[in-house]
Amino acid sequence: MKINIPESDQERIVIVGGGFGGLTLARLLKKQNYQVVLIDKNNYHQFQPLFYQVAMAGLEPSSIAFPLRKAFQGEKNVFIRVTEVERVDTEKKQLHTPLGFCNYDHLILAIGADTNFFGNEEIARKALPMKSVSEALHLRNRILTDFEIALSVTEYERRQQLIDIVIVGGGPTGVEVAGALAEMKRYVLPKDYPQLDTDEIDIHLVEGADRLLLGMSDEASQKALEFLEGLDVKVRFNTMVTGFDGENAMLSDKTQIPAHKLIWAAGVIGNKMPGLPRDSVVKGNRLKVDRFNIVEGTDSVYAIGDIAFMEEEDYPKGHPQVAQAAMQHAKHLAGNLKRLQKGEKMEPFSYKDLGSMATIGRNRAVADLPGFKFQGAFAWLIWLFVHLFQILGVKNKVFIFINWVWNYLTYDQSLRLIIRPKKDPAEVAKQ
Amino acid sequence: MKINIPESDQERIVIVGGGFGGLTLARLLKKQNYQVVLIDKNNYHQFQPLFYQVAMAGLEPSSIAFPLRKAFQGEKNVFIRVTEVERVDTEKKQLHTPLGFCNYDHLILAIGADTNFFGNEEIARKALPMKSVSEALHLRNRILTDFEIALSVTEYERRQQLIDIVIVGGGPTGVEVAGALAEMKRYVLPKDYPQLDTDEIDIHLVEGADRLLLGMSDEASQKALEFLEGLDVKVRFNTMVTGFDGENAMLSDKTQIPAHKLIWAAGVIGNKMPGLPRDSVVKGNRLKVDRFNIVEGTDSVYAIGDIAFMEEEDYPKGHPQVAQAAMQHAKHLAGNLKRLQKGEKMEPFSYKDLGSMATIGRNRAVADLPGFKFQGAFAWLIWLFVHLFQILGVKNKVFIFINWVWNYLTYDQSLRLIIRPKKDPAEVAKQ
Repeated sequence: MKINIPESDQERIVIVGGGFGGLTLARLLKKQNYQVVLIDKNNYHQFQPLFYQVAMAGLEPSSIAFPLRKAFQGEKNVFIRVTEVERVDTEKKQLHTPLGFCNYDHLILAIGADTNFFGNEEIARKALPMKSVSEALHLRNRILTDFEIALSVTEYERRQQLIDIVIVGGGPTGVEVAGALAEMKRYVLPKDYPQLDTDEIDIHLVEGADRLLLGMSDEASQKALEFLEGLDVKVRFNTMVTGFDGENAMLSDKTQIPAHKLIWAAGVIGNKMPGLPRDSVVKGNRLKVDRFNIVEGTDSVYAIGDIAFMEEEDYPKGHPQVAQAAMQHAKHLAGNLKRLQKGEKMEPFSYKDLGSMATIGRNRAVADLPGFKFQGAFAWLIWLFVHLFQILGVKNKVFIFINWVWNYLTYDQSLRLIIRPKKDPAEVAKQ
Repeated sequence: MKINIPESDQERIVIVGGGFGGLTLARLLKKQNYQVVLIDKNNYHQFQPLFYQVAMAGLEPSSIAFPLRKAFQGEKNVFIRVTEVERVDTEKKQLHTPLGFCNYDHLILAIGADTNFFGNEEIARKALPMKSVSEALHLRNRILTDFEIALSVTEYERRQQLIDIVIVGGGPTGVEVAGALAEMKRYVLPKDYPQLDTDEIDIHLVEGADRLLLGMSDEASQKALEFLEGLDVKVRFNTMVTGFDGENAMLSDKTQIPAHKLIWAAGVIGNKMPGLPRDSVVKGNRLKVDRFNIVEGTDSVYAIGDIAFMEEEDYPKGHPQVAQAAMQHAKHLAGNLKRLQKGEKMEPFSYKDLGSMATIGRNRAVADLPGFKFQGAFAWLIWLFVHLFQILGVKNKVFIFINWVWNYLTYDQSLRLIIRPKKDPAEVAKQ
């Protein structure tokens, strides 16, 4: 069955994935003489850098998610389909989905990356990842539920297990979650749970390397550690988490941390797309592309963002898997697709590092901008405004801004709600 | 096992339910010389009058839900427990919960009412109720998902089934949902789904009686009908829905309406509380109370709000099951409990009708205030401000206000997100 999208005289560009890369590309192509089909499994774009604030009850999911249809209202060339993608047939130039197959002239894979559990199935089953707004919301519900349960537990060890948290991975996500949790412990929880001794909550951050924020400067890394330790986060270096049974985290040094919750932010792996040439799939499941983002061994399949592995002289391991790179890929590819249509030659991409930042808590952030490194309150302010500026939608910006100002002034968040949509009895029956 | 709440010299008042009645009562008692235990299955209070706006993607759940713990921060006499209640033992004065049993000196049942399917199990299984914020969110997800699916359906009948909606019950909820859906159809959906002919969406409102808004004035009822028909809602009177298999609604006149979604707002039934004297449970599962809210056949069990059936001369069928009555019960009972402590006599309750309102859409509402009936834009404005005023929490007020102004000016909502918290694999396995 063919997917129900009108045929047109225009060449069809199919974009899979509405993240930073896919969405940016679709927006740049919407007024061009192409038919654009944007496919995502969700009906919204999600703003990944703030997932951790959703998990920590500081922001609502709706503030950092934006309906894809709203982004393309009135665009007659853009067709959005909410569905999974099963496989690609590069010979017939067809993409297969549960809604039917979809022909393409150009296929852009912006399918991103998901949590990498490095093959440990037990951890995959029991740990809490944070690579989608749904997972962030689930994490929030788990944290709050465990505090409620802990209130009724009189046995000391069991109570500790419920309130302690292990975070795996000292990258930006791990550092930001640890900082946000530590602030929640300090400012919010004592007011909500006077019956619990919130000083007893232990927040563990476990990192395999010997420093935090690999990829950022030593200054940033040092300062982040200082900030986290100032917030009582227990940081361990050169340690891996080798197992987690839902009650205890097993570490590579053979010790254990009893904890009911383990947040896994230790790495990513590219999402799969069956049907591509085997040689195009490289380390971390990324797709090897040339400097025009064309996937190796294909002629009209492109990959952008986290999923793309493009070697450059300065980036022998590919570009960093961050929003910035995805958006730069998207902008460049949009230019190349326009050139293609005019019969011009495509131009090779080169990555421009705009720097990176991470925030640890109120007035505490670290920033490495090109030629300018700084940490502390000013970095934190810059971090806030950069993120506010990037968020899609004026109303989202307004709501996030109010939330941040509110939380800053009151030392409180008011989103500590354990809300789950009612389960569909039919869905429950299917499981 | 005893629930883990510190014993104190104070008498213990246990309140079950954090709705309008239970929450109001707990707030009035928090500074009194009582130990107050507030039990709810959710960790938040929910603002029922705006559920329909959550369902129609106009408001976020967090705007109309308020964390119970936040409402009682710093109150040393108030203990909140998030749990179900299994039964009451009126002899031993104990309430049984999965967290253990809880002794009480006074037990206040503010357990409210749930959707009444009048014993029709098929409807109960397949219809969409709207008596909690979770159910409202689920309804939203269902509506949006069906529109996405409809895009790929080429067969006319099947597509109609996916986009048409049947609403059962012409009370305030039914009328408000129908109006909000009709406005979504008119203003939002054509922009989001240019490929669908949104004029084809049929919204059916089915009412068993011969008029809408029973309990309000004829003027209100007439005008509500006029407003709804102006918005193209198909209203049927003197008709019952006798069955719904998930694809077709069967009506009492033997006709059918093909529709994948049926919203059930046709009645409520009191929530159950095992362990009470059999005679105290009357029609609609309500608990018969005297003018002091004491449940018949008990001495220290009280019922307030929707669950309470109190006969007054002017109210032979009990008070209306609305927020207003619950709050009046709560205020009065708080007074009586204070009197009790001072050794004074309790005073009998009498209900004061403050009027009622319903909104059908922008600039369209009906209001029956004592001695003053009006309909239209002014009623709508009053409706907005009365509800804004009642919502708990300053930030919630601000967010709802911005949302309303925004939606009003843009004819758009931006909350059309199908977000579900990720399912817990452990939970899924249990099901």
